[in-house]
Amino acid sequence: MAGAGPAGLHHVFYPRRVAVIGVTDTPDRVGYNILESILYGGFTGEVYPIHPRHEQVLGCKVYKSLEDIPEPVDLAVICLNQHATVEAVESCGRAGVKGVICNAGGYRETGEEGYDLERRLISVAEKYRLPIIGPNTLGMINNDYNFYSTFYPMKVPKGKVSIISQSGGIGLTVIHMAIDEGLGINKFIGVGNCSNLDFADYLDYLENDDSTAVIGVFIEGTSDAGRFVRTAGKVARKKPVVVYKAGRLAAADYYTQTHTGSAAGSFHLYRDILHQHGIFIVNSASELVAACKALALQPLPGGNRVGILTHTAGPSVVMIDYLVPAGCVIPALREETIRRVKQIIGSDNPPVILKNPLDAAGLGFNRSTYGGLAEAIMADDNVDILIAVYCLHKNWELPVSGLMAAHEKHKKPLIVNYIGNWMGCRQDQEFMQKAGVPLYTAPEKTAVAAAALVHYGMMLKGGGNLDCK
Amino acid sequence: MAGAGPAGLHHVFYPRRVAVIGVTDTPDRVGYNILESILYGGFTGEVYPIHPRHEQVLGCKVYKSLEDIPEPVDLAVICLNQHATVEAVESCGRAGVKGVICNAGGYRETGEEGYDLERRLISVAEKYRLPIIGPNTLGMINNDYNFYSTFYPMKVPKGKVSIISQSGGIGLTVIHMAIDEGLGINKFIGVGNCSNLDFADYLDYLENDDSTAVIGVFIEGTSDAGRFVRTAGKVARKKPVVVYKAGRLAAADYYTQTHTGSAAGSFHLYRDILHQHGIFIVNSASELVAACKALALQPLPGGNRVGILTHTAGPSVVMIDYLVPAGCVIPALREETIRRVKQIIGSDNPPVILKNPLDAAGLGFNRSTYGGLAEAIMADDNVDILIAVYCLHKNWELPVSGLMAAHEKHKKPLIVNYIGNWMGCRQDQEFMQKAGVPLYTAPEKTAVAAAALVHYGMMLKGGGNLDCK
Repeated sequence: MAGAGPAGLHHVFYPRRVAVIGVTDTPDRVGYNILESILYGGFTGEVYPIHPRHEQVLGCKVYKSLEDIPEPVDLAVICLNQHATVEAVESCGRAGVKGVICNAGGYRETGEEGYDLERRLISVAEKYRLPIIGPNTLGMINNDYNFYSTFYPMKVPKGKVSIISQSGGIGLTVIHMAIDEGLGINKFIGVGNCSNLDFADYLDYLENDDSTAVIGVFIEGTSDAGRFVRTAGKVARKKPVVVYKAGRLAAADYYTQTHTGSAAGSFHLYRDILHQHGIFIVNSASELVAACKALALQPLPGGNRVGILTHTAGPSVVMIDYLVPAGCVIPALREETIRRVKQIIGSDNPPVILKNPLDAAGLGFNRSTYGGLAEAIMADDNVDILIAVYCLHKNWELPVSGLMAAHEKHKKPLIVNYIGNWMGCRQDQEFMQKAGVPLYTAPEKTAVAAAALVHYGMMLKGGGNLDCK
Repeated sequence: MAGAGPAGLHHVFYPRRVAVIGVTDTPDRVGYNILESILYGGFTGEVYPIHPRHEQVLGCKVYKSLEDIPEPVDLAVICLNQHATVEAVESCGRAGVKGVICNAGGYRETGEEGYDLERRLISVAEKYRLPIIGPNTLGMINNDYNFYSTFYPMKVPKGKVSIISQSGGIGLTVIHMAIDEGLGINKFIGVGNCSNLDFADYLDYLENDDSTAVIGVFIEGTSDAGRFVRTAGKVARKKPVVVYKAGRLAAADYYTQTHTGSAAGSFHLYRDILHQHGIFIVNSASELVAACKALALQPLPGGNRVGILTHTAGPSVVMIDYLVPAGCVIPALREETIRRVKQIIGSDNPPVILKNPLDAAGLGFNRSTYGGLAEAIMADDNVDILIAVYCLHKNWELPVSGLMAAHEKHKKPLIVNYIGNWMGCRQDQEFMQKAGVPLYTAPEKTAVAAAALVHYGMMLKGGGNLDCK
């Protein structure tokens, strides 16, 4: 948007005073849930609900109009229908509000008539240089500021990953997957129809947002793909950007066009161009979460050589299927490492294949052996990053301490793959991730996570040209 | 294996008397954990632990040798090293044991010397016409018979899905994912090195196993790919077979060869040939579980036309990316359906795009509206199967009853995608799946599940030629 710029968006993401225009007392309605979301999220700024007839909603005094609010408002969240929203934006402009979130749908995604209405919305906003998140959006969360402005009241763990999503449903999917993965979220932006703020504007803003370390993007399509790609590529030089692009088929285009008004474009074209700009591309919401988690927790590896320690071979076969096409290499271990591994294993033990991936078979069960083997591989100059696979077992202690010790000693990135169910892994996952080591339970996600780290490590070294196809 | 055949395997999967050769009292060791696994799993047959010196392990009397056991043994589980295993198989043959599980590695996967040893193992087994599961295997579970013979003591929910896995680690991954998905397992077979029983033998056995309704296969490679494919294709005419093929890269071949002794072969060749034989192919462990769950719970659709009901569009865009290449069609709704949808929505409501996928936007929040819309789409003759997407919400009731009522009325397959985290969805997932409706939380998995149902529905109608690429 002309004039808004990253600085202009600060008031939107960190508002001191927020008006909620169109609150109701019906828990079914958006206007109720936006207010509850803000209150439930623990917002510490001022909230001014607005409705011409209500006196009080959710314990808050309700104002008749913007003009009744005693202080200047930074952000207005508009929970009215598509027509009333346009009038409300006009009144926000007149009242000197600095930004708006427009939740209602009913614009370009519904056809020509809606597009006309959206053009009116945009022209009103431009008149007052008013940035709009949306319309047709779930809303926005700034977890760094306890500001939850969506119509899904929730609390999400805090973290350094910010998500830009063209879909509320996929955005919420990503947020819930992040909860399951123990990944903290910093900001969530539902871009909606991108009326006068596009992906590129949000990327620009997050580039300079110190509380965001990693950016995950779900995109179906945009009217200015060139600017999106160039901006993503520029931002990725400063902090990792991971993109999940949907609407990959020509057959799907008719549909993306009807709900956000953007053609999905050719997936392959997008993928190739994003790739050229150094962006890491994923193929599902769970891969997006997996990649962002690793990038948020771990340092970048010095190279693309992946060591794998396991006591069951299959997961490493699966991982190699992902790692190698993503530009990773599975290097040979050095002679010195082989010698150390032999020492740890002892001579009377069952045969272990002394190569990378190191399948420690029966020896991998033992916690101390496992930690020693991890340490030996991490010490190897041929290895830039270690993936450690371990199966939960009723009678065997998990190798947490050995892995953490190896990681602390060598400072190389470490990714852990437990084979176990959600409940069984939860405690170790929380513990290790608090110490910066991401833990997954699916080998495919583990591999994508490692590939994402390698990708950005190589890109910053000028290697580039890596992709997870 | 010559002579074993499906009938011969019955004693292996449903043994009345089991010897565990090489038990120990050390919880680190395989010999301890196999016995504990059998006891912990609740096996009701007779168990005879064998060790020359121990008197008692885990409360069981220990026998000195097979000859000391008073009754004929059906199955022997051999927990010795690779050399002693060969001798033990010989003694099993002499004692008239009907089948063995050989856990030890150290055979063909370790090189020429190991291959020679495995040839000896096979020739001893052939002499006595003794079927071997393994060697180099995690073991086997027959949950239909409370017989857990792996070295991972566990209990898994019962169900109709059986898994054949070339990897213990991926097998355990699948089992733990099944636990998380609320999917019951019937049998688990870790094929190991496939010494004298190959994938095709297990497929033949499970084809005639009445307690197995769906077969999931994880395969890296096999020495007789032709027989595997032909057998899988034959079995798939009777019950669905879902295949996850790993070791997809030439670069990975060296590694699969070192741990199971089989070349991974060309993935594309495998995929194309499996496809021609009507097998549904998946691309991850979680997709394998997702597809098997839908096939185990739902009837097959009468055609490939997928209706989608949602109140957030993005997930349906993601799903279409999976559904269309898998041979599904997203049909237009009939006039009568549009009329019914309009009635349910009412005229004073926000704009809903009246097409398939039906994005009910704000109206989708309301439980009664949602159920009515689901019923209307299911009633549509253009629709063979319905996917229903719903976001968990703090203040809105979930649409369980409406969905179940629609499903019961129309008997068309229904797949539910909740947008929510593991804990938040658990209760509804259990409830709905008990009633036969599978619930997922990732749109990609939901789409694969629907595609799997469509695939087998079309195959049985002679349509064939469908695949999830």
